[in-house]
Amino acid sequence: MYLPSKVKIVEVGPRDGLQNEKQFIDTAVKIELVDRLSAAGFPNVEAASFVSPKWVPQMADGTEVMRGIRRRPGTVYSALTPNLRGFEAALAAGIDEVVIFGAASEAFSQRNINCSIDESLVRFEPVAQAAKAAGIRLRGSISCALACPYQGETPIASAVNVAQRLLAMGCDEIDVADTIGTGTARRVYDVMRAVTEVVDPARVSGHFHDTYGQALANILAAMQAGITIFHSSVAGLGGCPYAKGATGNVATEDVLYMLHGMGIETGVDLDAVADIGHWISGQLGRKSSSRAGSALAARKAAAA
Amino acid sequence: MYLPSKVKIVEVGPRDGLQNEKQFIDTAVKIELVDRLSAAGFPNVEAASFVSPKWVPQMADGTEVMRGIRRRPGTVYSALTPNLRGFEAALAAGIDEVVIFGAASEAFSQRNINCSIDESLVRFEPVAQAAKAAGIRLRGSISCALACPYQGETPIASAVNVAQRLLAMGCDEIDVADTIGTGTARRVYDVMRAVTEVVDPARVSGHFHDTYGQALANILAAMQAGITIFHSSVAGLGGCPYAKGATGNVATEDVLYMLHGMGIETGVDLDAVADIGHWISGQLGRKSSSRAGSALAARKAAAA
Repeated sequence: MYLPSKVKIVEVGPRDGLQNEKQFIDTAVKIELVDRLSAAGFPNVEAASFVSPKWVPQMADGTEVMRGIRRRPGTVYSALTPNLRGFEAALAAGIDEVVIFGAASEAFSQRNINCSIDESLVRFEPVAQAAKAAGIRLRGSISCALACPYQGETPIASAVNVAQRLLAMGCDEIDVADTIGTGTARRVYDVMRAVTEVVDPARVSGHFHDTYGQALANILAAMQAGITIFHSSVAGLGGCPYAKGATGNVATEDVLYMLHGMGIETGVDLDAVADIGHWISGQLGRKSSSRAGSALAARKAAAA
Repeated sequence: MYLPSKVKIVEVGPRDGLQNEKQFIDTAVKIELVDRLSAAGFPNVEAASFVSPKWVPQMADGTEVMRGIRRRPGTVYSALTPNLRGFEAALAAGIDEVVIFGAASEAFSQRNINCSIDESLVRFEPVAQAAKAAGIRLRGSISCALACPYQGETPIASAVNVAQRLLAMGCDEIDVADTIGTGTARRVYDVMRAVTEVVDPARVSGHFHDTYGQALANILAAMQAGITIFHSSVAGLGGCPYAKGATGNVATEDVLYMLHGMGIETGVDLDAVADIGHWISGQLGRKSSSRAGSALAARKAAAA
């Protein structure tokens, strides 16, 4: 069974996890979340989103969050920047890496941002150029890389095409995202093999949702296809906007449990992450959606 | 990615799933559960346990359950039979397959049944002989094949040794069970490779718990090691007795979603199973612990 010896985990809880929360979360809580995550050893934390507060009010305090945190050397702080205005704000706030995104599904692109995939990518070009000019790391995210809620399975060629376009725009890292969590392991393996024919595997990441419980199996398959970067969210923060009440982002605790169990290094402290998951779930007044997190908490309670 | 084209799912909900329920479940509900499961196409349903009602009061009505069900041709009905008395009752009730069991962990065997692994296997010999004499299918289950709550990781040689012993006793099928759900994929692959060196892979099954969210990844790894039989429980019935509040048996819906998504045939109707999961969870007054089941229910509700 071919598996890597090291994996990079990008913790997306503070941004992708929190962005759809209805109740505004105190800036102080966001700052504590980012600080505790960086202290747990994550090499990369998605910390903010510089989008219009009209669209995502939860992320309106990105500048304050970045000003309030204790920066840990060794952690890259990322933010979503859909346009130049967002990019300038991110740069001023001291972000290390900016994220642009495009869908691999034409139907999703039209329904979500009212333009074709091609048009959406053209819109990101000024951001990409500005990032390169400023010497800021650039990440490109391919949403609906496996399937979309409107047209079902995404053709592999579409995902590969968007990956090539993002690479041509100068992206240092490219995310293959199963936005709705319907993908299964064999398809993940095939998509990752196809994408890594045009992009260096060391620059490709997997972003999986656990909506149908498939995320860890998909990560296992992606690793077998040569992928060594994965996104996850502490306590599984971030539901699925396409299936109310269902799980969204894969929980970081579950991913770390699997990787460490297989002797794969991440540099992240699982016990610390389990504590953070317990704490942030309490702040949001709900149960963690991490299975490993819940089992570790039960074990801790039994030992106490 | 090597994967089988067909997999046999053993649905263990009615027995392994329900046995630890505190509140006695009406015999009529158990009968309906077994009937709906067989109608959904399962080739094998673990329907009852013929153990002392003093030890497992929930399973005291095994004879009534077997008498009440509509037997579906093509479904094998199994029951746990720890001794000759249980075997005779199972035989009289019309069970097709009896299950005996031994732990691969010495500490677990001592703590749970007060005897060594060797002694426990000797105790099962009369049951095995009676099953063979009666022409009844015999299954042997290896609990704690990967790890145990008392001594940690189980040596692979111990699991292989118990497998050999069960094979010598005439078992037609041998279960490798991760009773506490702590195993991860690489270990599963290694254990399955070792066990299938002494037992025909077509006769080995994987029984995984989702306590730490690892079950689907473990099933994927086991399939890559040549395993084509898996146990699962509708709605994830059956918690983990070693971590209160944590998940136990892997949910059948999640397993079917993965297998069907990869084009692997099971002969089981996932939509029907999702409905059964929704129904039985309602009967028990709780949420399903199946992620695919919850997402399918949310999708159905949104479409209605």
